[in-house]
Amino acid sequence: MPEHISKQFDLELETIRTRVLQMGGLVEQQILSAIDALTSGDVAKMEKVIAEDALVNALEVAIDDDCQHIIARRQPAASDLRMVLTVVKTITDLERIGDEAQKIARMGRTVHGSERYQIPRFREIRKMAEVALGMLRRALDAFARLDATAALELAEEDQRLDEDFASELRQLITFMMEDPRTISMSIDVLFIAKAIERIGDHAKNISEYVVYLVKGKDIRHTTIETIKRETLDN
Amino acid sequence: MPEHISKQFDLELETIRTRVLQMGGLVEQQILSAIDALTSGDVAKMEKVIAEDALVNALEVAIDDDCQHIIARRQPAASDLRMVLTVVKTITDLERIGDEAQKIARMGRTVHGSERYQIPRFREIRKMAEVALGMLRRALDAFARLDATAALELAEEDQRLDEDFASELRQLITFMMEDPRTISMSIDVLFIAKAIERIGDHAKNISEYVVYLVKGKDIRHTTIETIKRETLDN
Repeated sequence: MPEHISKQFDLELETIRTRVLQMGGLVEQQILSAIDALTSGDVAKMEKVIAEDALVNALEVAIDDDCQHIIARRQPAASDLRMVLTVVKTITDLERIGDEAQKIARMGRTVHGSERYQIPRFREIRKMAEVALGMLRRALDAFARLDATAALELAEEDQRLDEDFASELRQLITFMMEDPRTISMSIDVLFIAKAIERIGDHAKNISEYVVYLVKGKDIRHTTIETIKRETLDN
Repeated sequence: MPEHISKQFDLELETIRTRVLQMGGLVEQQILSAIDALTSGDVAKMEKVIAEDALVNALEVAIDDDCQHIIARRQPAASDLRMVLTVVKTITDLERIGDEAQKIARMGRTVHGSERYQIPRFREIRKMAEVALGMLRRALDAFARLDATAALELAEEDQRLDEDFASELRQLITFMMEDPRTISMSIDVLFIAKAIERIGDHAKNISEYVVYLVKGKDIRHTTIETIKRETLDN
């Protein structure tokens, strides 16, 4: 990022970047807690995740407000403007990741509230969650270090996560057909898997905004081949 | 909106607003086509919806680009800046509504590609789609007419649509338990219902941006009571 005559402006830009990373850390924690609570059946922890989504939402509104003030007062151009607009988009995806964590916690509450404690295919769900969490961390790291190369990795990982979801779906269908009494519970698990798959989508989105920020190029809605070309060339 | 010294600036703002409404019209058409194709089993129409999602994506990227240029060149303040930022957010939701229409068409292809042509609970799905489409039209209309009062209606309608989804889910579970051979097909229908429910969420989001645009107040993540207070007071 270029240096500005106004130190105050630099500070403001740095502050919103830091707040995005804080928000990212909170959202990461929410996913971790939701998955942990699912493993342990800790209903109090699920309730906490559900309640703390309000913090994620409040952060989104606050950072959004900061961005508007910066645009109005500082009239940023070029890469500064791109930074502010990248933040506006990134926090929308972070907020929606927060929603997905909350959904997982809600589903966890339903699952553990029912008679049958045995969650089908739970190990696979945990594995998917680890992949999605890794993607989120990688995306936030790319944002922090202005690293455009992450987008390619994340596009590929997102494809694998989509395949994991499809395979999970097939397995759950088999499971339900073998024992129709598991249908209701299996559908809860299916929605948990879906929430995890969406976390991967949002992480991918964030890494694409970073490419736009660093390279000034919009690679959303393009193929992995295009992403490869745009992020690896200089 | 205030008058500007620069007629050119007025024209630019008017142009992005018109393009948002164009994009909204296209997305509306995509949902209609997807649901129609589902009814008639018209696979060519499904393929068209799937292919034309690229147009929706291209419009998003183009309008986003226009918004950036306007901010960089015109340095808008106050309500003009709010208008541009509202457009940036609105097109993200419209693009995701487009994704949901594409998903419905993909599911339709799967459903009609399988041996059993009888889609369970299809009438209810159509009814849900009509509600979601009505919500989208109302949100676009609110954007066009800068009408902050739509947010309240849409928040209430969104709650009803969520309830419809929950009831649809319960009915589908009963259906699957009665005849486990319908599990796979029912899950496709469940995902179609989920896509429709999300269209409602996005329409609600758009109406909330309009409140922010008109009143300068951020009502996202608040209760229906707060929305009532903020949109009806003057």
